[in-house]
Amino acid sequence: MNESELIARYFAPLAGPAGLGLIDDAACLIPPPGCDLVLTADALVAGRHFFAEDPPDAIAAKTLGVNLSDLAAKGAEPLGYLLSLALPPDWTERFLDEFSRGLGEAAAAAGVALLGGDTVATSGPLTLSITALGAVPHGAMIRRSGARAGDLIYVTGTIGDAALGLSLRRREIAGGALPAWAKTLDAAELIDRYLRPRPRLALTPALRACARAAMDVSDGLIGDVRALMRASGVAAQLDLARLPLSAPARAALAADPALLESVVTGGDDYEIVCAVAPERAALFEQLADAAGVAVTRIGAAAAQESVLGPDGAARRFARDRFSHV
Amino acid sequence: MNESELIARYFAPLAGPAGLGLIDDAACLIPPPGCDLVLTADALVAGRHFFAEDPPDAIAAKTLGVNLSDLAAKGAEPLGYLLSLALPPDWTERFLDEFSRGLGEAAAAAGVALLGGDTVATSGPLTLSITALGAVPHGAMIRRSGARAGDLIYVTGTIGDAALGLSLRRREIAGGALPAWAKTLDAAELIDRYLRPRPRLALTPALRACARAAMDVSDGLIGDVRALMRASGVAAQLDLARLPLSAPARAALAADPALLESVVTGGDDYEIVCAVAPERAALFEQLADAAGVAVTRIGAAAAQESVLGPDGAARRFARDRFSHV
Repeated sequence: MNESELIARYFAPLAGPAGLGLIDDAACLIPPPGCDLVLTADALVAGRHFFAEDPPDAIAAKTLGVNLSDLAAKGAEPLGYLLSLALPPDWTERFLDEFSRGLGEAAAAAGVALLGGDTVATSGPLTLSITALGAVPHGAMIRRSGARAGDLIYVTGTIGDAALGLSLRRREIAGGALPAWAKTLDAAELIDRYLRPRPRLALTPALRACARAAMDVSDGLIGDVRALMRASGVAAQLDLARLPLSAPARAALAADPALLESVVTGGDDYEIVCAVAPERAALFEQLADAAGVAVTRIGAAAAQESVLGPDGAARRFARDRFSHV
Repeated sequence: MNESELIARYFAPLAGPAGLGLIDDAACLIPPPGCDLVLTADALVAGRHFFAEDPPDAIAAKTLGVNLSDLAAKGAEPLGYLLSLALPPDWTERFLDEFSRGLGEAAAAAGVALLGGDTVATSGPLTLSITALGAVPHGAMIRRSGARAGDLIYVTGTIGDAALGLSLRRREIAGGALPAWAKTLDAAELIDRYLRPRPRLALTPALRACARAAMDVSDGLIGDVRALMRASGVAAQLDLARLPLSAPARAALAADPALLESVVTGGDDYEIVCAVAPERAALFEQLADAAGVAVTRIGAAAAQESVLGPDGAARRFARDRFSHV
């Protein structure tokens, strides 16, 4: 199969009108009038951002999902995406079958289509890069830098599932036994949160109406909140007793409280953290509820940073976020 | 150096206003009113698309140049680009110093700035992916599919230099002697054409005014012309006696006529091939001349394909283009 045949078989079916069937050299997209374009790119490498053993459809969903998560956090409606795919020597048609199916499903769920990209061979690990485009009304992109002291800090969904899921997935692949903390909980749910990000695109109207600053939580809650506040010239006062936890994460922490560090600094949550002025808080909660996205107030922006643990005592963490370099 | 420090040091200086200093999660670009967006992505892998030993500034210029070449062929004015960079374990600060300098110079020459991207580590070879954005007046993107029988086929610049340069560069890295055909010519010029594509952005006005179909010549002239004609439902009648050759390529072919196959199927030219209606040919040549871009008529679109060699006899080639998979 040459490059053109590969594209025609696996990727052309994922292209929308702007992708021109992936038979031209470029996509041609009519941007929505009066809108700014929001552009983001994320690269993922096997063995680093995912396991080569992960289901191909999950690898695809993650590669797209981490980009859509950035668009969601900026209040942008996704318009489309381009995929660069570097295939390792042992790629199989079955891999591409499942990868392209997963990509198509994740894209359809977000209402976007493939615009273009490139497929090459590599002697190294599977390497993926997606550039995603979104649109916001002119001037409406939600920056990191708009938070002010007194704003309330909200986070979507639940935090820490993916970090715990990563630890379980690592053992699963190595063929090891479950750790003691995982024996009485739903390990599959945690692993699924690691494998398949759930970009919070439904929150876009609430963010646009109410958030002064936002970003997605991809590299660990503590470090990402810190980055958001720093960009705004303020600091976070966080109350981890308020941290939204899934049932299995709650069970894990009950069994081993030391897992809290992993939960709040481990990354891969792909939730959204945002700053909302107090007078907008009620509206924000209403709009999020209407969108079906759980949001939890975990603290406030202030002049000085403080982090209180679940027991109400001040906490510090050895490292605050995950680095991909 | 963590990821944020690396971005701040090497890439933030390359960002334009839409890149927001690379401190946010996404770029925010105001698209030119009344224009369509033209989007393209190309990935390059060390050891496959370039040599790991190539000068870092040339690797950068090539990664951007191959994308700008696609925009040029579509008649688009470049707006910006995003870079995904997967660094191998042995990356050095010196590499990034030179890479970012080369990227900045190539971008400045094209009048574009960095919009965003991602930097990750890989256990494999250096892997780069750029997504480039351009703009055309609404409806004006030049497709592959517009050529009609009777159109004249033009190509920019000279063909085959990069393919010959690749062969010389491979020997240079292996420490081998120059081949006999290269002993009396300017090898450095050929190697430079391999290392540093020269995207023909200056041709945009001529293409928009006159071309019915166009693409860039990246994977070998014969195969790329064939792809252009096939997309248009026609075929190419090519006269290789008309092939535009540089002085060193001419010398190489004089010394070893068998190199013609490499010249016309070897790839990496990053010239533009286009189809121009006969009544527009004079205007096209004038506009190209005014833009300082050499264009040469090498054939015409017709119902049946034919390729005449430099001696006027029909020619066939074993393979027609380079495949990156």
